[in-house]
Amino acid sequence: MLYDFRSFVNPGHYAFGKGTFNHLGELIDRRKTPTNDWTVFMIDHFFQDKENILNRIPKSDKDLVIFIDSTEEPKTTLVNKYRDQILAHQDTLPAVMVGMGGGTAMDYAKSTGLMVTNPGDSKDYQGLDLIKNEGIYTICIPTITGTGAEVSMTAVLSGPEKKLGIKCDYTIPNEVIFDPELLATVPNEDRFFTGMDNFIHNVESMNGSWINSMGLAFAEKSNDITVEVFMNKYRDQLEADEKMMVASIMGGNSTTYGQVGVCHALSYGLAVVLGTHHGVGNCIVFNQLEKYYPEGYKTFKEMQAAQGVEIPANITAGCTEEQFDQMVEISWALEHMWDNAFGHDWKNKISKEEIKDLFKRM
Amino acid sequence: MLYDFRSFVNPGHYAFGKGTFNHLGELIDRRKTPTNDWTVFMIDHFFQDKENILNRIPKSDKDLVIFIDSTEEPKTTLVNKYRDQILAHQDTLPAVMVGMGGGTAMDYAKSTGLMVTNPGDSKDYQGLDLIKNEGIYTICIPTITGTGAEVSMTAVLSGPEKKLGIKCDYTIPNEVIFDPELLATVPNEDRFFTGMDNFIHNVESMNGSWINSMGLAFAEKSNDITVEVFMNKYRDQLEADEKMMVASIMGGNSTTYGQVGVCHALSYGLAVVLGTHHGVGNCIVFNQLEKYYPEGYKTFKEMQAAQGVEIPANITAGCTEEQFDQMVEISWALEHMWDNAFGHDWKNKISKEEIKDLFKRM
Repeated sequence: MLYDFRSFVNPGHYAFGKGTFNHLGELIDRRKTPTNDWTVFMIDHFFQDKENILNRIPKSDKDLVIFIDSTEEPKTTLVNKYRDQILAHQDTLPAVMVGMGGGTAMDYAKSTGLMVTNPGDSKDYQGLDLIKNEGIYTICIPTITGTGAEVSMTAVLSGPEKKLGIKCDYTIPNEVIFDPELLATVPNEDRFFTGMDNFIHNVESMNGSWINSMGLAFAEKSNDITVEVFMNKYRDQLEADEKMMVASIMGGNSTTYGQVGVCHALSYGLAVVLGTHHGVGNCIVFNQLEKYYPEGYKTFKEMQAAQGVEIPANITAGCTEEQFDQMVEISWALEHMWDNAFGHDWKNKISKEEIKDLFKRM
Repeated sequence: MLYDFRSFVNPGHYAFGKGTFNHLGELIDRRKTPTNDWTVFMIDHFFQDKENILNRIPKSDKDLVIFIDSTEEPKTTLVNKYRDQILAHQDTLPAVMVGMGGGTAMDYAKSTGLMVTNPGDSKDYQGLDLIKNEGIYTICIPTITGTGAEVSMTAVLSGPEKKLGIKCDYTIPNEVIFDPELLATVPNEDRFFTGMDNFIHNVESMNGSWINSMGLAFAEKSNDITVEVFMNKYRDQLEADEKMMVASIMGGNSTTYGQVGVCHALSYGLAVVLGTHHGVGNCIVFNQLEKYYPEGYKTFKEMQAAQGVEIPANITAGCTEEQFDQMVEISWALEHMWDNAFGHDWKNKISKEEIKDLFKRM
């Protein structure tokens, strides 16, 4: 277990349902003060040319809009850069940070909102409870489901040395708007990859040693819903998207009381060395993990077949031995994930050779 | 629906698991300030002679302990009285209110903590969003599971005119300690009645028209767990109690996004006229509701048989016609519950005669 004892913070507010996005301006206004009266919008670049969405964003003249390139994983260097941009934008601090998009945009909003009130380099805060001061009030608006970032106490960042989250009570979003209509334009493949990210972290936490009854119940229900969605139980896309929003909330809550495992440890290696995006990276890895998660693997393959999505193969074909070794070392260092997967004696259960061999098959 | 739009507040913190009660003192100390440095403990009178529990309560000389008689439903008159007692106890306001027990003790803590900072009579706050000021930081510690009070935005009170909750964002507890060891001494019959309260409100919200996907997912999982527990899937009592804590959290969350129905409307009538306690009252009513909730009724009877618990019968046998009419009027006035159960045209779906007939069979 990571904690002897912890009283976990819950996300502050949930606005759930079709049309809730229309109330964003109202929720922002509630948090403004006479001095702190402006907003930072960090929005997935996917929406950069989507006038129908951009026009609905309640932007005033004082506000700052930053479009987030979500083709790359969030980086500590960019968090620092955005922080500087925000501090230079007005004489006062913003009242609200809005993170709108997938895990990348939301994690940028969560982490940059903290760096505005905590001095120094964001890489120095990668880890548990290193943040000292509460950040800017953060509203997350997921536009793709399954990341869990909208409810989690982690903002995952890739730094110069490691991919590791800023994890503390203050990282939890203060408010989340769950509007399934915002998911309408998600490409089916992306829907699948992030949905599977949710499925996989639930499988890892359910099969891990760190889970408790609360995390287990959340993970089980989250995956029941995920399977219904990707086995096409819901014929109406809006309904399916709304259901997956619930699955994502429950999956995110589950990780609070559990921990990820083999798949995330390996996919962090891919992310740092090859820049592989989180959702698809997890699918590439999980596709090789039948031995460790046989039941989850079987269900995963059924959903993949039902969706007709191809999982990229041979992405490590051109890697050097040095690159493979680097991936192995990055994965191996994520002790908490291995401990959850195999128990305290995890070093007797898996070897670096075995891990390297898995990377070579990807 | 009750709300055109609402961004719902979540409970602030959850400390979950065996042994978390040992950390109560630590959680209280975090909330103390130089001026507000004392605590009010509202504890179910059941623990009045339980030295092994009382000795573990981190009480200091300045603190106030109030034992709550949970044989009666929470009353507005007593909330006012406790508020006066708290205001007279020290020159400053308390830092923390602790509510430890079942729904009664927790609802007293939630509502009295609000009345300390809001002037006047608590009966004037029965309803939605009538409270103006945030209350005292409230920590709830359930010692029986299924009430949902530990996570809900309602503190149900019986006033001179009506049984109706104080319901607003500020009613949500700031922190909850879920320690299944505290449930060890609950009599089996009480475990059943409050567990069934949870089961019933889930059935009502799942079968109502107000539910959304979030409330539905919570209610479904809550009842899956409740059925496992009362069909004796868990042979170890501590494990069963921990599972029911999760079911109660999820059931409580479900009511945020849904609404109760026929059973609660009728049981409020019993509560006001006969003083019938909430959990057992709901079972007495639900025992007559096969027509309205056929599936839920069937499962309820299976659990009752598995637990070997008797549901009290003929409790209205000695009632006058006047009393029956009073029960009917109290139930009939709970329009939101009927609307949820039958839709906007509920007055075409059920009549006062039918309701009276149901009361006569109880």
